[in-house]
Amino acid sequence: MTISDRVVEAHDIRLDEVTGGRARARMRVTAAMANQHGIIHGGYVFLLADTAFAYASNGHQDGNRPVTVATAAQITFLRPVPADAELVAEAVERSRVGAAGIYDVTVSLADPDGGGAVVAEFRGQSTTVARRLIGGSA
Amino acid sequence: MTISDRVVEAHDIRLDEVTGGRARARMRVTAAMANQHGIIHGGYVFLLADTAFAYASNGHQDGNRPVTVATAAQITFLRPVPADAELVAEAVERSRVGAAGIYDVTVSLADPDGGGAVVAEFRGQSTTVARRLIGGSA
Amino acid sequence: MTISDRVVEAHDIRLDEVTGGRARARMRVTAAMANQHGIIHGGYVFLLADTAFAYASNGHQDGNRPVTVATAAQITFLRPVPADAELVAEAVERSRVGAAGIYDVTVSLADPDGGGAVVAEFRGQSTTVARRLIGGSA
Amino acid sequence: MTISDRVVEAHDIRLDEVTGGRARARMRVTAAMANQHGIIHGGYVFLLADTAFAYASNGHQDGNRPVTVATAAQITFLRPVPADAELVAEAVERSRVGAAGIYDVTVSLADPDGGGAVVAEFRGQSTTVARRLIGGSA
Repeated sequence: MTISDRVVEAHDIRLDEVTGGRARARMRVTAAMANQHGIIHGGYVFLLADTAFAYASNGHQDGNRPVTVATAAQITFLRPVPADAELVAEAVERSRVGAAGIYDVTVSLADPDGGGAVVAEFRGQSTTVARRLIGGSA
Repeated sequence: MTISDRVVEAHDIRLDEVTGGRARARMRVTAAMANQHGIIHGGYVFLLADTAFAYASNGHQDGNRPVTVATAAQITFLRPVPADAELVAEAVERSRVGAAGIYDVTVSLADPDGGGAVVAEFRGQSTTVARRLIGGSA
Repeated sequence: MTISDRVVEAHDIRLDEVTGGRARARMRVTAAMANQHGIIHGGYVFLLADTAFAYASNGHQDGNRPVTVATAAQITFLRPVPADAELVAEAVERSRVGAAGIYDVTVSLADPDGGGAVVAEFRGQSTTVARRLIGGSA
Repeated sequence: MTISDRVVEAHDIRLDEVTGGRARARMRVTAAMANQHGIIHGGYVFLLADTAFAYASNGHQDGNRPVTVATAAQITFLRPVPADAELVAEAVERSRVGAAGIYDVTVSLADPDGGGAVVAEFRGQSTTVARRLIGGSA
């Protein structure tokens, strides 16, 4: 079980790789995620990046480990995303110091649609919390 | 017509107020937006804040005006959001200098559920672009 | 005694107002803070904003209270700052939830030099820590 | 000539490496940069990171190229920095799309003082502007 299963199902997100400190997630964006200009709402790009971040920071978890939660995130939008594109988000752990973690996520247009062109760069800050504090049954 | 109509419909977001530089948006979060701990995925909190930001920065637009788009955003998560809570996002323009804008969005638990407790603080950076550049027909 | 006395002296920063949750700091930027284009290095604008943030978040402290430290900050540069301008940074507490705090700082060109034109917007994240943990004698 | 020569001199910053898209800068922090708890003011950590960012983004410049300027930056403080430590900041270009750039800077305690322990992670956003717009003679 993972930290955001229903989000993943609701948006048909596919997880290619989840290892300790890394995760790759894919999502095909749909017309329903676009504004009237045909450009995908940045909130969905964030949602995909944030999902990859959640998996990367919890990928090595088991039922006894503390849970990692997001405390803050920053995203820069570099290119508009057209409807029907497939996005891929690559999350990598950058630093861990005590309970604090920093994760970088690059969101790109997947091949063959976009040839890997970067559409957004995301950085997440996380902290670990005791499992009992968030009522987790996992 | 507005910048994110379908996003608004898909998540049943209600817009209470949209005036030049300000917007208030509400959304009831559902169990489908929660992780296995019963806590709402931060991506949905961002989505609501980002929607309020989009309306605040485009609220005074008409068909001839340039369109304002997000270039970056930062969010800090201050409290976990339980499933079934109603969230309210208040967006206010903070600064506009040339094409650049800064908007602050506070996301709170709406009364009577949460008594206005703040769950996240969001800051968005925007830029205005000529309408023809994004192919908008509006 | 305050959290950054020597920084204040080294840069001739003046503190007009320090109350619980608010602080106003002023600094005249000098040619030594400029790059070869005559534009002030953004690091000095950050330094002034960060000082106002430190005072706002610790302004009501006494020797028995926990100390507030910065955990993260974000700054957006909106206008270039010319050498010899006087800058004023206004810090205001935005949210406090448990140990966490969010402070906003607006940096402007002071009258009569700049008529209050905003040059940067800063947001700081803080946490309170027990005084003994940082070895403070204050 | 570089973008922040006088800042470099004023703080005795040494540049080990400046190539297109990368820069490494070192600075020994002094007691004058510390607060009354003996901890270095975060503004100086930012100043060093921002300097490395400026060099990385302008390292390949010559008199005919456009100049890259910072538009925004975010920093997360991960460990306190003691007075007299030597800091090293490693800046790397992450993405360039049109005029926009993203640079990551890791600030660490240099050997033998700190064994490379990370004290802060910085991310800068930049844009290129025509040289004539900033009055540069370089």
